[in-house]
Amino acid sequence: MINIDFDKMQGLAPAIIQDADDREVLMLGFMNQEALEKTLATGYATFYSRTRQKLWTKGETSGNRLRVVAASTDCDVDTILLRVQVEGGGVVCHEGTRSCFTKDLLAEDLLTKGSAEVAP
Amino acid sequence: MINIDFDKMQGLAPAIIQDADDREVLMLGFMNQEALEKTLATGYATFYSRTRQKLWTKGETSGNRLRVVAASTDCDVDTILLRVQVEGGGVVCHEGTRSCFTKDLLAEDLLTKGSAEVAP
Repeated sequence: MINIDFDKMQGLAPAIIQDADDREVLMLGFMNQEALEKTLATGYATFYSRTRQKLWTKGETSGNRLRVVAASTDCDVDTILLRVQVEGGGVVCHEGTRSCFTKDLLAEDLLTKGSAEVAP
Repeated sequence: MINIDFDKMQGLAPAIIQDADDREVLMLGFMNQEALEKTLATGYATFYSRTRQKLWTKGETSGNRLRVVAASTDCDVDTILLRVQVEGGGVVCHEGTRSCFTKDLLAEDLLTKGSAEVAP
């Protein structure tokens, strides 16, 4: 078992949640050692809530649990990536969308800059 | 322009880097307001290094820059997702792999548990 470096964030590490099938990034949560152990032991994503300061298993009330298909960490062993299958209605975000990442940041600006900076 | 909530992490927010073409998650870095502004202004991902305590533009020495194709944030506006095209040799990780997420966490355990927990 690889030991995740939780020290950089005072006991926490970011955990990226990605759909195992279509690879959409669905959400990001934080885990402490206990949340990671529970996730790996149960096969369902459990996070540590920074605002509520306790563990929460995603979907425990909504039914939209995140079944972990694969789990990995990065070169610095300070970030977790979980590939999941979403159970229940398949909705991850509390705003009713599949992914939490629905708010565009200046997409038009980037497209303009991107095309302007394409190498000749 | 959406204002990212940098307060939860003392001025930082995690930024997930995803390949715009095949949707592979390549790395996670952290941004402060200045790094995000530079990223959106230049179209190339710039992060804040927690260990070196300064901005760094990914690929500025290796040439493997991350050209931002789309940028979004989540429901809590405290996490950034960038879809990028990797320039140069296409390698993102300093260990020589395309993605930084190469270390498996108990994949076999999860597979066993996953199949045991499949609903009948």
